[in-house]
Amino acid sequence: MTATIRKAVVLCSGGVDSTTAMAMAFSQGFAIYSLSFRYGQRHVCELQAAARVSNYFNASQHLILDLPLDAIGASALTTSVDIPKDRSFEEIGKEIPRTYVPARNTIFLSFALAWAEVIGAQDIFIGANAIDYSGYPDCRPEYLEAFEQMANRALKATVEGSMRIRIRAPLLHMTKAEIVKTGIRYGVDFSMTHSCYDPLPNGTPCQRCDSCILREKGFREAGIPDPLLRRSHV
Amino acid sequence: MTATIRKAVVLCSGGVDSTTAMAMAFSQGFAIYSLSFRYGQRHVCELQAAARVSNYFNASQHLILDLPLDAIGASALTTSVDIPKDRSFEEIGKEIPRTYVPARNTIFLSFALAWAEVIGAQDIFIGANAIDYSGYPDCRPEYLEAFEQMANRALKATVEGSMRIRIRAPLLHMTKAEIVKTGIRYGVDFSMTHSCYDPLPNGTPCQRCDSCILREKGFREAGIPDPLLRRSHV
Repeated sequence: MTATIRKAVVLCSGGVDSTTAMAMAFSQGFAIYSLSFRYGQRHVCELQAAARVSNYFNASQHLILDLPLDAIGASALTTSVDIPKDRSFEEIGKEIPRTYVPARNTIFLSFALAWAEVIGAQDIFIGANAIDYSGYPDCRPEYLEAFEQMANRALKATVEGSMRIRIRAPLLHMTKAEIVKTGIRYGVDFSMTHSCYDPLPNGTPCQRCDSCILREKGFREAGIPDPLLRRSHV
Repeated sequence: MTATIRKAVVLCSGGVDSTTAMAMAFSQGFAIYSLSFRYGQRHVCELQAAARVSNYFNASQHLILDLPLDAIGASALTTSVDIPKDRSFEEIGKEIPRTYVPARNTIFLSFALAWAEVIGAQDIFIGANAIDYSGYPDCRPEYLEAFEQMANRALKATVEGSMRIRIRAPLLHMTKAEIVKTGIRYGVDFSMTHSCYDPLPNGTPCQRCDSCILREKGFREAGIPDPLLRRSHV
């Protein structure tokens, strides 16, 4: 008698959130199919972190897809517009910043959906968070629920009834500190990860962009030192 | 006093349906932003038809994006699996064929959505049809409605209230013959178009794949000669 191994597609940016989401999928016994994107982002070094994390959680496959998001334009993450720096937590939560990439999670989840049908994975994990986050609309629960509903009407396998897609966002209602603590509990080594939108050429985080500021808040409130900063200060 | 010109993103494959949808958008006074994809399809010559059609309808821009759908695999349109040939209309409607590409319209519409937000277009036209079609799940009304609902929760502009996305599928409930007649009425020159999944190297349609068979049915029932066939028989 052999148990069927359940597969999960995990969106993997190599950051704190998606790494913790992957750790949770791993702990639930899923075989990990890790999915990353090269989309013209300035912080393309996050893909090295994504590879380390995927390897650490013994991913059955780590697929990196090239997407022409920069051909569409209009984000500080993919163009030469300045990355916002030194903003307070209040500012970060207040409005959608210019690092917003139009329809990014919709595009990422659409590819995850296609891959899920091909490999027979019913679960798609995404590290979306709607508490300590940058205010991106496609990280909110009402968006993710609508995507799941659409997904189940989109595929041959869901329409024929052999699959039901679940969009899993286990960090959705956690603070950044809770995410860090959850990651530690599930065995994440955060020195593998990368969060900065505007790193130095050697990958050292700027510690001034929204992503660095949210990361710092998470580790500080969790009472845990960030191994990335420890390393960069030696 | 200047009237604001409304923009529409039109998904353009260069076939009968998307060309007719573009003609309808044009007749409604939209400035056309035509969007096509190079996704590893065998019938990549459809992109030349897409360019002709976009030019004919005076598109403000024709964007062709490269998508790595073939890296995900699993369709006769992108792999070396045989294209089904010589099927009857009954067979074509009965089950989802192996030319189905997982989540294709979801991926295409997601890029259309991103572009729509960047250029400020509220209308996205797609030539989806659920009558004389190949049975693809992502051509059905319940799918398109779910996509529109998701889209309006996904974008900065829709969440902030400055835009409302409409997915327009004006051919959804037409027969193929009605589509051909509608295209003619709106000025389409169908000799610009391409439908075949498995054309000869010079672009001549095979006349045996599902797409050719549906096209032939449309022109025959409309009582109009197909200019592509006329041309190829000279």
